[in-house]
Amino acid sequence: MTALDITSEDATLETAPTRYIEGRGIRFAYRRLGPSTGTPLVLLQHFSGNIDAWDPAVVNVLAADRPVIAFDNAGVGRSTGQTPDNVAAMARDAVAFINALGISEVDLLGFSLGGCVAQQIAAEHGRLVRKLILVGTSPKGGEEHLLAVLQEAFSQTDAPDPRLPLFFTTSSASRSSGLAFLKRTQVRKDDRDTDNGSAVTDPQAKALITWCATPDPEHAMLRAIRQPTLVVSGSHDTMLPANNAYAMFKELSNAQLVLYPDSGHGALFQHHEIFVSHVRTFLHA
Amino acid sequence: MTALDITSEDATLETAPTRYIEGRGIRFAYRRLGPSTGTPLVLLQHFSGNIDAWDPAVVNVLAADRPVIAFDNAGVGRSTGQTPDNVAAMARDAVAFINALGISEVDLLGFSLGGCVAQQIAAEHGRLVRKLILVGTSPKGGEEHLLAVLQEAFSQTDAPDPRLPLFFTTSSASRSSGLAFLKRTQVRKDDRDTDNGSAVTDPQAKALITWCATPDPEHAMLRAIRQPTLVVSGSHDTMLPANNAYAMFKELSNAQLVLYPDSGHGALFQHHEIFVSHVRTFLHA
Repeated sequence: MTALDITSEDATLETAPTRYIEGRGIRFAYRRLGPSTGTPLVLLQHFSGNIDAWDPAVVNVLAADRPVIAFDNAGVGRSTGQTPDNVAAMARDAVAFINALGISEVDLLGFSLGGCVAQQIAAEHGRLVRKLILVGTSPKGGEEHLLAVLQEAFSQTDAPDPRLPLFFTTSSASRSSGLAFLKRTQVRKDDRDTDNGSAVTDPQAKALITWCATPDPEHAMLRAIRQPTLVVSGSHDTMLPANNAYAMFKELSNAQLVLYPDSGHGALFQHHEIFVSHVRTFLHA
Repeated sequence: MTALDITSEDATLETAPTRYIEGRGIRFAYRRLGPSTGTPLVLLQHFSGNIDAWDPAVVNVLAADRPVIAFDNAGVGRSTGQTPDNVAAMARDAVAFINALGISEVDLLGFSLGGCVAQQIAAEHGRLVRKLILVGTSPKGGEEHLLAVLQEAFSQTDAPDPRLPLFFTTSSASRSSGLAFLKRTQVRKDDRDTDNGSAVTDPQAKALITWCATPDPEHAMLRAIRQPTLVVSGSHDTMLPANNAYAMFKELSNAQLVLYPDSGHGALFQHHEIFVSHVRTFLHA
């Protein structure tokens, strides 16, 4: 429990030092916020994202009453190792990270590709995972439009950041909350995480596309998940549509579904206040 | 504002006096809880239900920080008048009741048939309704299995109350929360509301079945609703399935969807703590 003994109650995502820990031969970069006791909430990041791609408005508020851990999985950001091209290996690496921290039980919040990894971990490690939060993600064999949407987003050369068209809708409300989100992610200046190149995004894209292209007609993966699960999506997620969330809700044995209006893949950042309230209610219940 | 001047902050659904007010020639029975200021939340009851069919665990907690008004619509319980056989007339009567109270803006929580009435009011009275909560209900032209499910429920002669099979699933967790719900509704002994007979349930059944049998392929009713809306359903609602809720979410311009696990038509009573938290977050946002 060495790592958890470091109290970091006053730290925020913007101010917490980046720490490092070794597991399975990988040196994992991570930040830890919130109290030193309680079930830690481990965040599993989206395609191409690093630690600084999380929204402080979500992470800091969740850390007000529980430990929250953001990390770079193998090969991502400032973690060493190779980024695997499949979800199962990403889950194996994430578990190695959690084991290295000496934590015996976690809650998981997986966003997008991170949600696939979270499903895999929850299905395989029933005792390690207490509760599961799946945001903007897909079941195995689900619907994805990753490449088409990425291509469209990167063709918008006037966008200040590809996440604006990727994560938010074209409504002025969604766009303006998108700009506010981007601003929040840029507050930290020192000790920022490293941006990811194609050595990360190529295998990650392959992992996500393969996950969705692998049929699971009997929903074996979802049915292996016994943990209470909160499934969240935006109404107009163009990459991994809300239909995925509804389908997961129907097949999971103990799931709550929350869908937000006028929102895309980044619904959790757009509706951060309501999202945090829903997560706290779910984790507390 | 006479009626609202009566402060009833300490009253609960079980202890509040039943009051009466006249509008459109109908003498409406109602109870009013919570503070004397704030936008009142008006409750629209399900098929066959009276004021005492609401769950004190929902109503009393919601009334902790807002006025909450439960009432019998025309012909129901101890209200005078005829129960209409169509949703539009029920909406007209409910608006007459709200007008009689001198209230210019309300939030509406409509459950089941009450959710149909709430949709009609919100669509027709854009200024009267601030926010809308639709629970276990159907859009116009939606899916209902009222008669089949009622027949099945009333054939279970060993059930202590038809609401047990109608509102809860067959799981032991759902059944036991159903028994707890029934117990909560039976705490009030004096000044209880009158049970409804076929003069109420026959026209109400016709209204609900007609509402669902009336196609609205362009979703004109839902598209006329501009208020922020929270749509809620149980995962295994046998009467008005969760598909209705998902369909409403997709067509409404500004809706949030929340679906609960292992729950039937009475999901709001089974998951009352989480439901109240979701309602408060929604009304507060």
